[in-house]
Amino acid sequence: MAISALTQPPVIILLRPQMGENIGASARAMKNCGISELRLVAPRDGWPNEAALPMAAGGADIIEQATVYDDMASAMSDVVLSFATTARMRDLVKPVINPRQAANMTTERPQSEGKRIAYLFGAERSGMDNDEAVMADYIVSADLNPDYPSLNLAQAVLLMSWEWRMSALAQQQAAQATDDWPELANIQERDFFFQRFETMLKDKGFFGTEEMAPVVNRNMRAFFTRATPTKQELQTWHGILSLLMRDNHR
Amino acid sequence: MAISALTQPPVIILLRPQMGENIGASARAMKNCGISELRLVAPRDGWPNEAALPMAAGGADIIEQATVYDDMASAMSDVVLSFATTARMRDLVKPVINPRQAANMTTERPQSEGKRIAYLFGAERSGMDNDEAVMADYIVSADLNPDYPSLNLAQAVLLMSWEWRMSALAQQQAAQATDDWPELANIQERDFFFQRFETMLKDKGFFGTEEMAPVVNRNMRAFFTRATPTKQELQTWHGILSLLMRDNHR
Repeated sequence: MAISALTQPPVIILLRPQMGENIGASARAMKNCGISELRLVAPRDGWPNEAALPMAAGGADIIEQATVYDDMASAMSDVVLSFATTARMRDLVKPVINPRQAANMTTERPQSEGKRIAYLFGAERSGMDNDEAVMADYIVSADLNPDYPSLNLAQAVLLMSWEWRMSALAQQQAAQATDDWPELANIQERDFFFQRFETMLKDKGFFGTEEMAPVVNRNMRAFFTRATPTKQELQTWHGILSLLMRDNHR
Repeated sequence: MAISALTQPPVIILLRPQMGENIGASARAMKNCGISELRLVAPRDGWPNEAALPMAAGGADIIEQATVYDDMASAMSDVVLSFATTARMRDLVKPVINPRQAANMTTERPQSEGKRIAYLFGAERSGMDNDEAVMADYIVSADLNPDYPSLNLAQAVLLMSWEWRMSALAQQQAAQATDDWPELANIQERDFFFQRFETMLKDKGFFGTEEMAPVVNRNMRAFFTRATPTKQELQTWHGILSLLMRDNHR
């Protein structure tokens, strides 16, 4: 399935990548998932690198259009939200999320020129150092086998790209499904209904003691909220309430 | 996080794999995700293959314990449920699911000795042929970029293994969370409540016409069901109903 232009893919940034083969394989993984923009920060063996193209396979265009930067800051000049994929760093105070959460945060947020979202990957073996990770908004840590969690660079790129793609496709399908969905009541409409409902309970003498009211009311609000009522359903409920309240005055 | 023994990983079966490097990289991806059993059907260059071990990295034990079979049927003698990861085959009538669905089907079903679940992967380039795919229960098709959906063998193994791991971890967390969850009302309890609720509406004269009743009742049942009421919540509702019904007889 094609992903609409609305859901712009993130930028992939490789920090100090070493092997051209790994850069190529990363480009292939990006291509598989429909991500096209690759930035390289200080690639060890310079750029272009002959070893990259054969491993890129169908992602050759990504290798050809990759851009190179001297340092991380210049590669991120237009990035407003970034995710560092790395093992958990104990001495760094950063929120740690998993790849699926990072993907959902990416697809929920619109990007525009000068306001891009980036996935950052450290060098092979050494990974990302603290000075690099500190520049990212979130640390992304995949919950892998603790006996051997170390992913090859291209495998890490695939895993993040795949999660982005699944999230983007799900968001697109949800947007299509929403068109057919009955209109939901908004928070104001819900609140108005709750107030009437609570008044009814009070007027009917449902609360044996005064302390009971807030507890019951809170639980009932939780119950109704869980059902995510539609406008139509709240109208039915209002009808029921009106009928029950009428009895009060007869 | 470690995955409990309850959630047994699937078996990975590579059909006619060609490059030792790809077999090694597949083993590494399996190890990353906590999957350990690798079976090889007619590997092109024989077995063992010197090229496999270096690429396996931390998954060397998987390579050393891999078993080899002459044909697919013998590799699957103890398999009761199998998923063929391949591009969609137009002339084969098989249910097609995505990797996430396959993972959930795997973790929902208990495995035991002689009753294993297998993920099947075809040869590099040529993929799985129809005679192979027909032996699988499901075709698994990842919704990748239509311009270039072709995954490297080890990337396909990683993608399936990762989805299995995420599903297994989610299942484990759900099992733990269920212990703290309030007890839900069962279908009988819900039905008893609905009947009382519907009786109340009828007795109060809510239905202007007789035709209105089934429609409103159905919508209300849908509403309550969507909230998945707890036993405690239905008790509160019964209290409210008792109070409202009492008014009837005053």
